[in-house]
Amino acid sequence: MANIKLSAISTRAPKDFDKQETKEKLLSILEKLDALQNLLYAESKHSILVVIQGMDASGKDGTIRNVFGKLNPQGVKVKSFKVPTAEELSHDFLWRVHAAAPAKGEIQIFNRSHYEDILVTRVHNMIDDDMARKRMKAINQFEQLLKEHNNTKILKFYLHVSPEEQQERLKERIEDPAKQWKYNENDFREAKLWDEYMKVYEDCFEYCNDIPWTIVPADQNWYKEYVIASTLLDTLKGLDMKFPGLKKEVSPKL
Amino acid sequence: MANIKLSAISTRAPKDFDKQETKEKLLSILEKLDALQNLLYAESKHSILVVIQGMDASGKDGTIRNVFGKLNPQGVKVKSFKVPTAEELSHDFLWRVHAAAPAKGEIQIFNRSHYEDILVTRVHNMIDDDMARKRMKAINQFEQLLKEHNNTKILKFYLHVSPEEQQERLKERIEDPAKQWKYNENDFREAKLWDEYMKVYEDCFEYCNDIPWTIVPADQNWYKEYVIASTLLDTLKGLDMKFPGLKKEVSPKL
Repeated sequence: MANIKLSAISTRAPKDFDKQETKEKLLSILEKLDALQNLLYAESKHSILVVIQGMDASGKDGTIRNVFGKLNPQGVKVKSFKVPTAEELSHDFLWRVHAAAPAKGEIQIFNRSHYEDILVTRVHNMIDDDMARKRMKAINQFEQLLKEHNNTKILKFYLHVSPEEQQERLKERIEDPAKQWKYNENDFREAKLWDEYMKVYEDCFEYCNDIPWTIVPADQNWYKEYVIASTLLDTLKGLDMKFPGLKKEVSPKL
Repeated sequence: MANIKLSAISTRAPKDFDKQETKEKLLSILEKLDALQNLLYAESKHSILVVIQGMDASGKDGTIRNVFGKLNPQGVKVKSFKVPTAEELSHDFLWRVHAAAPAKGEIQIFNRSHYEDILVTRVHNMIDDDMARKRMKAINQFEQLLKEHNNTKILKFYLHVSPEEQQERLKERIEDPAKQWKYNENDFREAKLWDEYMKVYEDCFEYCNDIPWTIVPADQNWYKEYVIASTLLDTLKGLDMKFPGLKKEVSPKL
């Protein structure tokens, strides 16, 4: 994914996608996901990590509600990464992330993630390029660890909205009483750093793509949700899972 | 540390070490350690991870009591790694280890460690050579992460006893009422696998030596304790620490 230019990638659904049809397809995918998630949990051999990144108002929360909201919460967990606490800052940046990694059988969703440590921190010059590269290397190795040593499939989604769509949505957060709780006075200030954010995202897609990113056109929620749900469906189908049958009693052993 | 042969390394103190003199030196080292640990905690810039490995009855518990027992428990923590629980087994093998990594300012002692995952597991054929290599690589990367991203100095000690000394000590566990609580019926069975254990330890010292191991002659407790305490002292002295002075009030910030 070398030299990717986000501004050259459409933020909208391809022309041949019909909104109503796609919404119906999504419903049928969600049903299949529910069954496959149950199988994933029952088999407990694989784990799934879904990383959701995107600018403010790119639709991260809505994605989680609409794509994952109907699945059994026993096997589906969401971790929102906020500004690190003092305790978290006293450890390496992956410490809190590793703690939240999925157990076998689980789908773990990251609302923001370890990628913030090479995004917001870079835009605000809290780390230099050299440290950013070191963190990227550590991130690649960490993702490899989960993949090789815990059968974790990692799906990384960037919710790609246009700056115009973002502005629309931020304004709604002021005007719509049901959205005002999401408004943060930093939002518009951060939005002015759009170009800087695009640059660090592009860099991240270039250097942290051993486990590949999916750029999801996200101006239309129905298309965004369809892309993510169908990517997850394909992933689960690809695992070749079976119900394990009657268990023998196994006691843990070194 | 290529092609190390443990059987060729002495398990006893060098001839010029006098027991009484060394014990007195240890006391003076312990006093210095106490002051430096306080400084480490106050400065909260570096962290120390002490990994203690060794065969059964090689003196791991005694080391912890006699070398670290006098330090302030507020900044010194011990984690004993036992047979993994079902929850731990549902994650990658480094998950529980990373969770126990030291915060800045702390000395964290591992009584056994992530190395068990390439030692006992190999001797009992729970993993093959290919998986062992993969785990070794992951271990090296993990230790690098702590070093580069949390200023963690890692000290790795192998308590090197002779098989004869081990047999002596295991017999004491049966005979001495104050030691019987340590006796485990597996001890003698595991001791018979001595050669297999030496082989996997030697392999570990060869492949996981990016952050180097110290082989500690451990048949005499006074010498073992002296080596570990003085290694820790040298490490702390090398950190060039200062008391940070009056703090400005800093609120965490992304």
